[in-house]
Amino acid sequence: MINLKENERLDDLNLKGYQIIQNVDNFCFGIDAVLLSEFATVKKDQNVLDLGTGSGIIPILLEAKTNASHITGLEIQESSVDTARRSVAFNKLEDKIDIIQGDIKEAGTIFGRASIDVVTSNPPYMIDMHGIQNPDMPKAIARHELLCSLEDVVSAASFVLKDKGKFFMVHRPHRMIEIVHMMRKYDLEPKRVRMVHSFVHKEAAMLLIEGIKGGKSYLRVDKPLIIYKEVGIYTEEVASIYE
Amino acid sequence: MINLKENERLDDLNLKGYQIIQNVDNFCFGIDAVLLSEFATVKKDQNVLDLGTGSGIIPILLEAKTNASHITGLEIQESSVDTARRSVAFNKLEDKIDIIQGDIKEAGTIFGRASIDVVTSNPPYMIDMHGIQNPDMPKAIARHELLCSLEDVVSAASFVLKDKGKFFMVHRPHRMIEIVHMMRKYDLEPKRVRMVHSFVHKEAAMLLIEGIKGGKSYLRVDKPLIIYKEVGIYTEEVASIYE
Repeated sequence: MINLKENERLDDLNLKGYQIIQNVDNFCFGIDAVLLSEFATVKKDQNVLDLGTGSGIIPILLEAKTNASHITGLEIQESSVDTARRSVAFNKLEDKIDIIQGDIKEAGTIFGRASIDVVTSNPPYMIDMHGIQNPDMPKAIARHELLCSLEDVVSAASFVLKDKGKFFMVHRPHRMIEIVHMMRKYDLEPKRVRMVHSFVHKEAAMLLIEGIKGGKSYLRVDKPLIIYKEVGIYTEEVASIYE
Repeated sequence: MINLKENERLDDLNLKGYQIIQNVDNFCFGIDAVLLSEFATVKKDQNVLDLGTGSGIIPILLEAKTNASHITGLEIQESSVDTARRSVAFNKLEDKIDIIQGDIKEAGTIFGRASIDVVTSNPPYMIDMHGIQNPDMPKAIARHELLCSLEDVVSAASFVLKDKGKFFMVHRPHRMIEIVHMMRKYDLEPKRVRMVHSFVHKEAAMLLIEGIKGGKSYLRVDKPLIIYKEVGIYTEEVASIYE
């Protein structure tokens, strides 16, 4: 049994029977989070920290897909923390996933230096409020760099990661130069990139990037990830993720 | 009539009847140069400088494809300069293309600051001699950073480019982070990238990149350029370039 609050819905993740509670007034998870959880590699018994976890979608997907020892989601917004915790409880994952309320800028203090094997993040993409602005605060905070900047995310990830620890982020390609610049500034060497295109003949709409703390310079650019083979029909790769 | 030297051959470019002389003992042009000349955009009456022009393939292709006012190829190796000049003469392009013998490190002195609208380059890809080494010097110089480094190419391009002038380069994706770092160091903001994949399911094998002198930060990642649709059969896009 689950008590859904007003404006909440329960979505099936099609993975180990897991479901997730989403507040439709807040930012609902999208394909970004799903693709990031596919892109990220977590080895057995590694611990994971998801910075800005929102509904907790990434910890729940990673719990289903990997053999992580423990996954923590850090989230600043109280309403999202509450929803994420209830999703964790509903899926009986309290032993595997913690949702902690806190500011990404305080992640170093909360978790300590060199304590984490893998950091993931699906941070706000918009650099300021000049883009399409959402007057609703929880959505605006999830979309725009109001409470944390790209630098806050990257510097927090670098601080908490162990030497050779991995950082996985989904972001927008138009900010890639800034992203790789920032990652290098904080000793997270970009090692792998995958461009996500809605169609094979369209420019990239999303960027998946992997960095290694203290890694050497050598970038691999993966095969492109194409979402649709024709309008409304997923490519086999994406269909297999969602199946 | 053309006098071919020993070990030279004449290749048809399938463009305005142009042909190019190549010394089969030296580095012969590849798909890299062809794709770069497609990727580069040259407006009417702009002047172009190709750094490390080799056989002169890029100036000749750009002359055929654009309305550039004048194109200069800079090349350090005497044997390549000689071959490139004879190709220019054979195609009767002496009024449009100059081949100058010189070192990329001297490009600033040769051409002067802020004198060029568009710089192109297909530089050596290999960072040192640890890769597959070609003991034959002209080929080794074309492939390895023996006589010029990535930094030499980027700094020379930046120096000679006018404000808002464009830089187009083909390189290897595994060096992309270094490339964009170097471009930013010399105020050539990366604005557009196109990944080249041999097949749609293969990692990127080449990188086409455009920078703008003094440009603002905003990267566009173009649709992927796929070479083959199946083994031995070009995609329509590549076939149309070669047709």
